[in-house]
Amino acid sequence: MNYKMIRYIIGMILMAESAFMVLPMLVSVIYGEYEVIMPFVYSIAAAFCTASIFGLKKPKYDLVFARESYIAVAAGWILVSVFGAMPFYLSGAIPSLIDAVFETVSGFTTTGATILETVEHLPKGILFWRAFTHWIGGMGIIMFLMMLTQMSEGHTLYIMRAEVPGPSVGKIAPKSSSNAHILYGIYTGLTILEAVLLLFSGMGVFDAVTTAMSTAGTGGFSVRDAGIAAYNSAYVEWVVAIFMLIFGVNFNLYFLMLIGKFKIVFKSEELRVFLAMVAVCTVVMGVNSAEYYGDLGVAIRKAFFQTTATISTTGFGGVEFMNWPMLCHSIILILLFTGACAGSTAGGIKLSRIIMTFKMLRKESHRLAHPHEVTTIKFEGKFVDKETRSFIMVYMSAFFVILAVSSITVMVMGHDYETAFSAVLSCLNNVGPALGDVGHSGVYNMFNGAEKLFLSLLMLTGRLEIFPILILFMPSTWRRH
Amino acid sequence: MNYKMIRYIIGMILMAESAFMVLPMLVSVIYGEYEVIMPFVYSIAAAFCTASIFGLKKPKYDLVFARESYIAVAAGWILVSVFGAMPFYLSGAIPSLIDAVFETVSGFTTTGATILETVEHLPKGILFWRAFTHWIGGMGIIMFLMMLTQMSEGHTLYIMRAEVPGPSVGKIAPKSSSNAHILYGIYTGLTILEAVLLLFSGMGVFDAVTTAMSTAGTGGFSVRDAGIAAYNSAYVEWVVAIFMLIFGVNFNLYFLMLIGKFKIVFKSEELRVFLAMVAVCTVVMGVNSAEYYGDLGVAIRKAFFQTTATISTTGFGGVEFMNWPMLCHSIILILLFTGACAGSTAGGIKLSRIIMTFKMLRKESHRLAHPHEVTTIKFEGKFVDKETRSFIMVYMSAFFVILAVSSITVMVMGHDYETAFSAVLSCLNNVGPALGDVGHSGVYNMFNGAEKLFLSLLMLTGRLEIFPILILFMPSTWRRH
Repeated sequence: MNYKMIRYIIGMILMAESAFMVLPMLVSVIYGEYEVIMPFVYSIAAAFCTASIFGLKKPKYDLVFARESYIAVAAGWILVSVFGAMPFYLSGAIPSLIDAVFETVSGFTTTGATILETVEHLPKGILFWRAFTHWIGGMGIIMFLMMLTQMSEGHTLYIMRAEVPGPSVGKIAPKSSSNAHILYGIYTGLTILEAVLLLFSGMGVFDAVTTAMSTAGTGGFSVRDAGIAAYNSAYVEWVVAIFMLIFGVNFNLYFLMLIGKFKIVFKSEELRVFLAMVAVCTVVMGVNSAEYYGDLGVAIRKAFFQTTATISTTGFGGVEFMNWPMLCHSIILILLFTGACAGSTAGGIKLSRIIMTFKMLRKESHRLAHPHEVTTIKFEGKFVDKETRSFIMVYMSAFFVILAVSSITVMVMGHDYETAFSAVLSCLNNVGPALGDVGHSGVYNMFNGAEKLFLSLLMLTGRLEIFPILILFMPSTWRRH
Repeated sequence: MNYKMIRYIIGMILMAESAFMVLPMLVSVIYGEYEVIMPFVYSIAAAFCTASIFGLKKPKYDLVFARESYIAVAAGWILVSVFGAMPFYLSGAIPSLIDAVFETVSGFTTTGATILETVEHLPKGILFWRAFTHWIGGMGIIMFLMMLTQMSEGHTLYIMRAEVPGPSVGKIAPKSSSNAHILYGIYTGLTILEAVLLLFSGMGVFDAVTTAMSTAGTGGFSVRDAGIAAYNSAYVEWVVAIFMLIFGVNFNLYFLMLIGKFKIVFKSEELRVFLAMVAVCTVVMGVNSAEYYGDLGVAIRKAFFQTTATISTTGFGGVEFMNWPMLCHSIILILLFTGACAGSTAGGIKLSRIIMTFKMLRKESHRLAHPHEVTTIKFEGKFVDKETRSFIMVYMSAFFVILAVSSITVMVMGHDYETAFSAVLSCLNNVGPALGDVGHSGVYNMFNGAEKLFLSLLMLTGRLEIFPILILFMPSTWRRH
């Protein structure tokens, strides 16, 4: 095990974080919030010093294998969350350290589950940092690291595999650091575009920027207690909903559009399923809840917002869906499971895995009935090899086993069925809102410290696509070879 | 597609059923229940005539491929359930035809989910038939068919694969019809042994025989409204609990013990996990519920009963576990998922699949971290080939996808979270009792006709290990080639 390289990578991640924290500090300076400037200074210093201790000089022996990358990514996210929690804790915005860690993990994993009952009284610098964690988490702090460091192709790829969400990324993922720059540019460009469009609504700059950052990371933290509903504007709802849809699409498709390969984009199976699902769910929920609103137009808008908020795993509040008919609740539950496209900032199982699972069930049934026929599976126009197929099935099994075991664990700790299951599913899929007790209060405060740490671990597990966290905690990883 | 052979096999199954129905008719004669004799006569005649129409002469071209076997098994179980429902319906014991079908499917699939709020007022012949469906379903009506017909090795194997529960059966399953006779002998012998032991408690012959048949099939239908608690005897509870444990073990292990291969039996990984789980759950639930009973001994006995009733998917009532602490409920929920050993009469996912899933998760994590190492998986002392591993993962994914989609479907129909999820899980795993509304009333009457048919389909899907039912309803199965 190349411990020196793991230390170095983690050091670089923390260094990047300390640089990122300068921005919310400046926000506090601009708004004259002098009481939170020092907490940011301390946090920046702590991250910087730790990074320095971890070592900023690249080790001479810089070969990194898969194992090291997975460990570095998993450990990096955990440490980033702990240091990222410092401003919340030191400023007194979140008096409990565990709560602060939970909120930060929720931020970096772009989950958006919160323990804050009200946020509007908090300093702007703190609110900015909270939304900024979503934005940083969205494309992955490692993505930045990759651009900062000069790693060789092979190493980068390993880290990409652990970091960039979804199974199909290997195929059309950017393979050099210049392509990564382009993806980063698309991400930033779309965020700025949303912020500008929100400004047209008459929304303040601070609200527009933080809302855009939360949307981009498909996180869901808002600077208003009422969420998007606080702006009381159909225009804002449309803009945010459309951008939640946009950030749920595989980023590589935007990359392909930039280089003019529109044909591949329009042929994308996953994109078609994604858009079809959004359309169907919007219409069904809109028609179903029309009576509640007394206006089909309003109902369709609310349904579109709720659909994109759920399927993109953003989870912005602002729609009173708890009052909708039962059918809508079930549709929302299905969307909670699926997630959006692979290679997007969204969490969840991802549509490509769902599509592949159904294709494989059909194939296996067919194969059992016709054992002598050769059956293959095509996805996105390409044959899927055995290795990939097998891995997707293992992933699905792992997901459901973790979901079942974790739900039962939370139930054992004394929570009812609905609360435990929906909170675990929401955290594991990085959505944020949940049903049951969480649904009624809107916050995760009914959980005790141990439970909050457990849910934080689930958020990380979901965000890193399960296996890096399993590897980190597996004894065989740490055994000497 | 060899339609003639499918017709022939289904005909044989119905013929066997008409013969089986003579026994409950004789029970009615013995008890002088003249009002139910004619319903039985009509049912026997209907099954016999249909079987005759389907054709009792073996077709000349008797080659049967996997597809035909799966279709014959799936369609056979459905038809057997419809004809088996006739005595309930015609005698007026169950006035609704859909309810009668639900009850019969529940019987043949050894689920034990019931729509009857009280049973003690029913004729003995009807109660006998109800328990007898469990016993017939337990080892599989096809098992009998196999012994009755003179199929060649290859054909038998295909049917065995579709019928006998569990993934490991291929390895040590009986491969000739004489071995099948031995398994059938063990099954009958153990049933008689239990009935005799129950007689020692002073229980009547009728109760002892029906209880033994329900236990053998790991079904759970009782002839008493209060279930096993009606006998108010610690001895009866111990006997039934021990036999639920016995019928949860892979029958091939008894076969191996009969031929003296004790070493293989004691080394069985699945058996060890099974016994360890039962021991741990019994102790934990016993200690946890001791306060409720005020006596550790009683608590341990109740916990042992509930553990074996749940893990073996028998689901006999008689323990007031709804009053136990929350921890016990969670343990029961875990046991609801697992099921017992492969190759037993129990339903559920089966422990061997659970063990394999955990082994594969560990293996895949390890492989991701060490991509150049060759990793293998051993189960029951043998290396597991890729094909089997892949199929188990597909099975697990299929199980959880069906569980999720079905739960949401039942929720859409207007049932709460807990009721929908636990009823679907209970039916799919052939357990019987559920939580929520079903838990409070003890019966499935809050579901409407369509829902009952849907749950019946889930019971069949679970009992036949998912794929035969998928194949039956897959369009490609019926397409001409």
